[in-house]
Amino acid sequence: MLSHQTRLRVRYAETDQMGVVYYANYLVWMEVGRVELCKALGFRYKDMELNDGVFLAVVEAQCRYIYPARFDQDVLIESSVERATPRLVEFGYEMRAGDDGRKLATGSTKHMFCGRDMKPVRLPEKYKVNFGIG
Amino acid sequence: MLSHQTRLRVRYAETDQMGVVYYANYLVWMEVGRVELCKALGFRYKDMELNDGVFLAVVEAQCRYIYPARFDQDVLIESSVERATPRLVEFGYEMRAGDDGRKLATGSTKHMFCGRDMKPVRLPEKYKVNFGIG
Amino acid sequence: MLSHQTRLRVRYAETDQMGVVYYANYLVWMEVGRVELCKALGFRYKDMELNDGVFLAVVEAQCRYIYPARFDQDVLIESSVERATPRLVEFGYEMRAGDDGRKLATGSTKHMFCGRDMKPVRLPEKYKVNFGIG
Amino acid sequence: MLSHQTRLRVRYAETDQMGVVYYANYLVWMEVGRVELCKALGFRYKDMELNDGVFLAVVEAQCRYIYPARFDQDVLIESSVERATPRLVEFGYEMRAGDDGRKLATGSTKHMFCGRDMKPVRLPEKYKVNFGIG
Repeated sequence: MLSHQTRLRVRYAETDQMGVVYYANYLVWMEVGRVELCKALGFRYKDMELNDGVFLAVVEAQCRYIYPARFDQDVLIESSVERATPRLVEFGYEMRAGDDGRKLATGSTKHMFCGRDMKPVRLPEKYKVNFGIG
Repeated sequence: MLSHQTRLRVRYAETDQMGVVYYANYLVWMEVGRVELCKALGFRYKDMELNDGVFLAVVEAQCRYIYPARFDQDVLIESSVERATPRLVEFGYEMRAGDDGRKLATGSTKHMFCGRDMKPVRLPEKYKVNFGIG
Repeated sequence: MLSHQTRLRVRYAETDQMGVVYYANYLVWMEVGRVELCKALGFRYKDMELNDGVFLAVVEAQCRYIYPARFDQDVLIESSVERATPRLVEFGYEMRAGDDGRKLATGSTKHMFCGRDMKPVRLPEKYKVNFGIG
Repeated sequence: MLSHQTRLRVRYAETDQMGVVYYANYLVWMEVGRVELCKALGFRYKDMELNDGVFLAVVEAQCRYIYPARFDQDVLIESSVERATPRLVEFGYEMRAGDDGRKLATGSTKHMFCGRDMKPVRLPEKYKVNFGIG
């Protein structure tokens, strides 16, 4: 399976008055993991947007919150391609504490390839190898 | 069913370089809807935290993105209690364009009642009526 | 002076673990006030971007934090045009508690008119009246 | 002068529909730089909050935007203590492109030491050495 691990440190901005990370920020972390996974797969998401006009429009996102992340904590994000076709791609994510490996959250996102007009397109041939599409 | 409608206007801060609302912000909107739904149900979430030390810790969140929301757009959020027990509560959300009613997204969140220490607690008796718990 | 008052309610997402609104979010509120001020001045910022390709690129922002804003608080934002030329515009902001009028923060932002390429442009003639220019 | 350099990569979430980083996010980056600077000065901001109940309440923030930062760009933040007394501390920031060193923005923040109740306190003796207070 195509997967990649990236890490980040929890920002004060990401906490809320409950003293833990606000729930929407885990989706931002998934984006961070996804972008780095793309690099590990051999391309820059930035270039795909800029050079090919192909965007990953999210159609579904989901997160299970297991243990709260806290300010200044080191977080490991394991991102992987769960499924890829010329039309869409699904990513899976596992977020763990950097020190003791405790699982913080798991998530998934589903994206359609689309053009600048947000209309669906097929993934250009040259990117298929990056997503492991035969 | 216990439900409530609230509205907001898309902020520039909420857009990203794709020209549409960044996907994590829909979870912020769900929070806005949830807080207003609580008021419609007869209590302030703020007071439950402050006076009773009871928090709604999110354990799951999910969103389906149907049509992209854009800057300065008027958005209607229909929030509802899908299920409530003394241990947990599930909310459902439907986000629509304020002008033509076009569906933008649907979502759900599942929360456990917990104390300041993030440990699970039972919902205090006095709040049961607000959640329609018998 | 050209000024306008708008209001908003503090979101949970906007708080941090200090239990008050995170400092960067006041700049988001200034944007909310600025966008509504533009409407009061007779045009939609959205249209200026979309139809005329003219953007307000911020060159300076400043905020003085006087009293902390808290979750679910009603906030009044008084926004005003402090200075406008065909090249740049300065806005001032005063943020107050909606209930007792207590001053929460004051701020200012300075913007250059620019094109899609982020290069400076002169404000199109038709908008001059909106900014009270000659 | 007490200073420290940290780096980060621009997130997609941090961009807006102008295609560049939204202006409020530079204040988040300043926080990232400030937190790492504290570590370089010999203490964890997290511990100061948790163990000593001392918070850095921001009283003023300012940013000058020189050149727009873009998605996936490497950004260097040079943070420094500009002034420190037992009552308050001022930080300065310089943000540069990681590749060519181009200056993106400069900023400053001024903070008062305060307790959990947001009332001003004097910096505990043990931290004075970290801030270079005689």
